[in-house]
Amino acid sequence: LAADTRPVLYIRDSASLAPLWRDAAQNGLPQFDVQIGRSNLDLDRVTAALVWKPAPGFLASLPNLKLVVSVGAGVDHIVMSDPDFPRHVPLVRMVDPGLTQGMIDFVVWACLSILRKAKFFANEQLAKRWEAKPIETSPNKTIAVLGLGQIGLPVARMLKKLGFQVIGWSRRYKKVEDLHLVHGSDELKALVGRADMVVNLLPSTRDTYQIMGTEFFSSMKKGAAIINAGRGATVDENALLEALSSGQLSEAYLDVFQVEPLPSEHAFWIHPKITITPHIAAITHPKSGIRALKRALAEIEANKPLSNLVDWNAGY
Amino acid sequence: LAADTRPVLYIRDSASLAPLWRDAAQNGLPQFDVQIGRSNLDLDRVTAALVWKPAPGFLASLPNLKLVVSVGAGVDHIVMSDPDFPRHVPLVRMVDPGLTQGMIDFVVWACLSILRKAKFFANEQLAKRWEAKPIETSPNKTIAVLGLGQIGLPVARMLKKLGFQVIGWSRRYKKVEDLHLVHGSDELKALVGRADMVVNLLPSTRDTYQIMGTEFFSSMKKGAAIINAGRGATVDENALLEALSSGQLSEAYLDVFQVEPLPSEHAFWIHPKITITPHIAAITHPKSGIRALKRALAEIEANKPLSNLVDWNAGY
Repeated sequence: LAADTRPVLYIRDSASLAPLWRDAAQNGLPQFDVQIGRSNLDLDRVTAALVWKPAPGFLASLPNLKLVVSVGAGVDHIVMSDPDFPRHVPLVRMVDPGLTQGMIDFVVWACLSILRKAKFFANEQLAKRWEAKPIETSPNKTIAVLGLGQIGLPVARMLKKLGFQVIGWSRRYKKVEDLHLVHGSDELKALVGRADMVVNLLPSTRDTYQIMGTEFFSSMKKGAAIINAGRGATVDENALLEALSSGQLSEAYLDVFQVEPLPSEHAFWIHPKITITPHIAAITHPKSGIRALKRALAEIEANKPLSNLVDWNAGY
Repeated sequence: LAADTRPVLYIRDSASLAPLWRDAAQNGLPQFDVQIGRSNLDLDRVTAALVWKPAPGFLASLPNLKLVVSVGAGVDHIVMSDPDFPRHVPLVRMVDPGLTQGMIDFVVWACLSILRKAKFFANEQLAKRWEAKPIETSPNKTIAVLGLGQIGLPVARMLKKLGFQVIGWSRRYKKVEDLHLVHGSDELKALVGRADMVVNLLPSTRDTYQIMGTEFFSSMKKGAAIINAGRGATVDENALLEALSSGQLSEAYLDVFQVEPLPSEHAFWIHPKITITPHIAAITHPKSGIRALKRALAEIEANKPLSNLVDWNAGY
């Protein structure tokens, strides 16, 4: 058997999604030897990499790397997970319309599940209990959306279209015609004090680290709920457990966690007021990922400027 | 103690909601002696009645009845439950914006719960299992909305705004600018064959009786789901159980049933593919009900035409 000399496309190991990635890559980029995960990887042959949170120094150890595509929209996770990222290699981020749509679907689902008391009625069904309970409608509920980027703004707009009272918050001043937006720390506290649900879509930065902590939760309206579809690092998980146990908060819908996968001994799993999803609010579909990679390769080939090239100074 | 000679406002007994109705009525209409339910009712004193499904002949037995308000939008349930309805007494139906909003909230919640595999991930959480699964986004799913009245059209519009592919169906020809609509039996079969979810908002009539039966379910796309927020009589419940057990259908979200409350021995309660809510998709809020009654009384007093008076010939 002759050794395979094709260039290697490295794809991060995403466990249950790996077969879908392999199929998409082999169909879309047949010129590559597709390798999922780092085991038995021929480092010299890797010319392109599709990553999420690369291990520290891993990408720097690939001498012939020409292109990195991140399957997430931000670069914060790359900076944090791999401070040694080889910055001379172009890093392209995914701008996948499916990601935004997935976040909209997820957040609207979570907000409506809270509004419609989905957990309560699921328990009623288990008990075979038929008892009407007045359900409020969306115009009677105020939702605070924290984080107003490429995901937060469309999410806020959709919640408003559904009928909810929506107020968006960002750290810095921002203005759009069709939404009520506020900014800065003082406004955050006031907003959080009147919201029935707080949707967290904040990026993970030094400023947002555990921004949802004891103080945040106690300034919330009693009985309010949170939805975290941003980053796990923005929530102080012990403080959240306390706020739920004391009744200060009624519910939490969580898609992201400090440690992922969420360890099986974590108290969140069995908490009756917590609904867990395994970081699937928005998943880059393997086909979209390979399409982005293919486009970037074609642009390099044609000596064109790369679409969605990350600017390390701007941070996105 | 002198006997109470005030006119009686009869309010149907809605069990868990009764205290809310009593409060709303006593606050809004203090001139009335408010009686919930039929026990110990002084029939001669009843001048106004707020009903849902009156018992046959009950309203006809009230000699001084001047006004009936139905807490539902349709009159079908009144015709069916009480063929002896005294048609010389004006019947006013509720047109409560909260009802439409409640239906929108409910149907969107149910469709997103199906899209987001809510039931699957709830079971994953019980098993403490962290496994990503690719979730499709709303533009990849087609929803058929059956019934295009005051509720069906706004529901269809909202599902479309969310991103779903939406096709509306009604028995008779109907046209609106912003939605794809079809009509008639042949189109129903074709539509149902391509929809991933079928939302049933049909009224209960002779033509719709068990319209969702064995034939309907077998013409559906394999693995599709249904949402019934219309009337229980439109579904053949045994055929639904069969379609779910054979895998022809993946899920059912049911808010209405042939017999309500759903009997505790009914197979639906414990079926793993069925999500039950106790006819709460849209609930008339007691305050709205009393407001409608108050308005009708004022209109009678002022000799004005009654708003939302039911036309028995038109059937609504």
